[in-house]
Amino acid sequence: MKELGYYNGTIGELDAMTVPMNDRACWFGDGVYEAHMCRNYRIFTLDEHVDRLFSSADMLRIRVPMSKDELKNLLCSLVRKMDTGDLSVYYQVTRGSGKRNHAFPKGSANLWITLTPREMNLSKEPVGLITAEDTRFLHCNIKTLNLIPSVMANQQAQEAGCYECVLYRPGGRVTECSHSNVHILKNGVFYTAPRDNLILPGITRAHLIAACQRLGIPVKEEPFTVEELKAADEIFTSSSTRLCARACRVDGQNAGMRSPELFNALHDALTEEYFAATDA
Amino acid sequence: MKELGYYNGTIGELDAMTVPMNDRACWFGDGVYEAHMCRNYRIFTLDEHVDRLFSSADMLRIRVPMSKDELKNLLCSLVRKMDTGDLSVYYQVTRGSGKRNHAFPKGSANLWITLTPREMNLSKEPVGLITAEDTRFLHCNIKTLNLIPSVMANQQAQEAGCYECVLYRPGGRVTECSHSNVHILKNGVFYTAPRDNLILPGITRAHLIAACQRLGIPVKEEPFTVEELKAADEIFTSSSTRLCARACRVDGQNAGMRSPELFNALHDALTEEYFAATDA
Repeated sequence: MKELGYYNGTIGELDAMTVPMNDRACWFGDGVYEAHMCRNYRIFTLDEHVDRLFSSADMLRIRVPMSKDELKNLLCSLVRKMDTGDLSVYYQVTRGSGKRNHAFPKGSANLWITLTPREMNLSKEPVGLITAEDTRFLHCNIKTLNLIPSVMANQQAQEAGCYECVLYRPGGRVTECSHSNVHILKNGVFYTAPRDNLILPGITRAHLIAACQRLGIPVKEEPFTVEELKAADEIFTSSSTRLCARACRVDGQNAGMRSPELFNALHDALTEEYFAATDA
Repeated sequence: MKELGYYNGTIGELDAMTVPMNDRACWFGDGVYEAHMCRNYRIFTLDEHVDRLFSSADMLRIRVPMSKDELKNLLCSLVRKMDTGDLSVYYQVTRGSGKRNHAFPKGSANLWITLTPREMNLSKEPVGLITAEDTRFLHCNIKTLNLIPSVMANQQAQEAGCYECVLYRPGGRVTECSHSNVHILKNGVFYTAPRDNLILPGITRAHLIAACQRLGIPVKEEPFTVEELKAADEIFTSSSTRLCARACRVDGQNAGMRSPELFNALHDALTEEYFAATDA
């Protein structure tokens, strides 16, 4: 298949797939999701993403309609149906279906999956960033379908010719970006926002922290401000579809790019991990 | 028809209706909506709701795929297809379809409509309320499909045997409820949260303010706290499906119920307006 859509056991080409209008995704965005990469028909960091899906679902009292192992087996079997093994693997669980009503429905949750051709972006070409106030809800640790503020922030970045929008809370504390975490290097130390309800506990972020530890780079999981970000030696985002994107410009001003060895060491460490786990 | 679903010109019984998996409602909750009542095949406060839909859409740069008059005519013509003229009229506009991507899609927006039998709840029977911290995003003036925090707060109220959950921001400022505005009467004055980005500009709220003005009740659109709410003479919610719900209990303690004449005058004023506009 070229692009696969799956809904509660029904499979088809994604463009032709439909879902019941009464799925609660449609009325409330009432669900949680994961999106990550597959290379050579091998799904990268599958365990960690499935764990996070279940954790997101738990926090919203959504019961994933199968076990972790069943879900992993299903994803692996669907991937083998595809014309290419280089894919974006996306799945979401929504809180069931029923007449529109805020109250939880009686029936079970729904499982959606899409598989679409895509390759991991491993470019070291630096990108531009903008900054904007973080106006999202206070559950950013849960990977939900309530993504309008992220859509708007990302669009703002795109229209400014930039890759991402760095979000900050009142007082200037940087949280994350519209669809990535963001980190800085300063005087040889790796700084990243602490894990709380204001950021997604990124899986690439966790791998970056582990790489720092292997490479002897001190890690501080501490809040930093937009000003500190702009004055950092290096600034880079991380996500599951673009491991590390290095920034050379923030809000139209030159920034970062002053610690290329450390940045390259981290980028290379993640790239090697990715290839090692997904070589045919 | 019994329950109608409409999607971009296709009409069917709601339970059987499907929508493209690639509608952005499904991935991002990327849309805005309205929900209000119809009685005797007459849609109540149609102009005001359609105006607000367009205003919500504007704020998110979504272009409603028809004019206000076209939408109103469509809603009125669909209502006439129904077995009963006492209905909940629900419609939403989503930012188009396409492969999952935060960036705005190229195509036009999608229009969804549902019509389901329902009667306005005009009960004067007092209800219980709970309170909880308002953890929603900072765009509560826009009526979006990003409703997970409202779903969770409403569920909490239901499980406590209550009608609604009163939300407050840090510091105790009351904003609104999970799907209603909330107001208090104290010493003969009507207090309601000011119109800002923390509350939906409720249409019933606007009618309540107008009724206060007709009845000579002073109105203060000012923030009030949970403590002030609990000490108020009367506490009541307003929404388009239950004009006024009077509270007798907040967080398990007796509250309100000390200014029945004023409450009844307001409830009666709204009820009369509703009947006058929708009598056959």
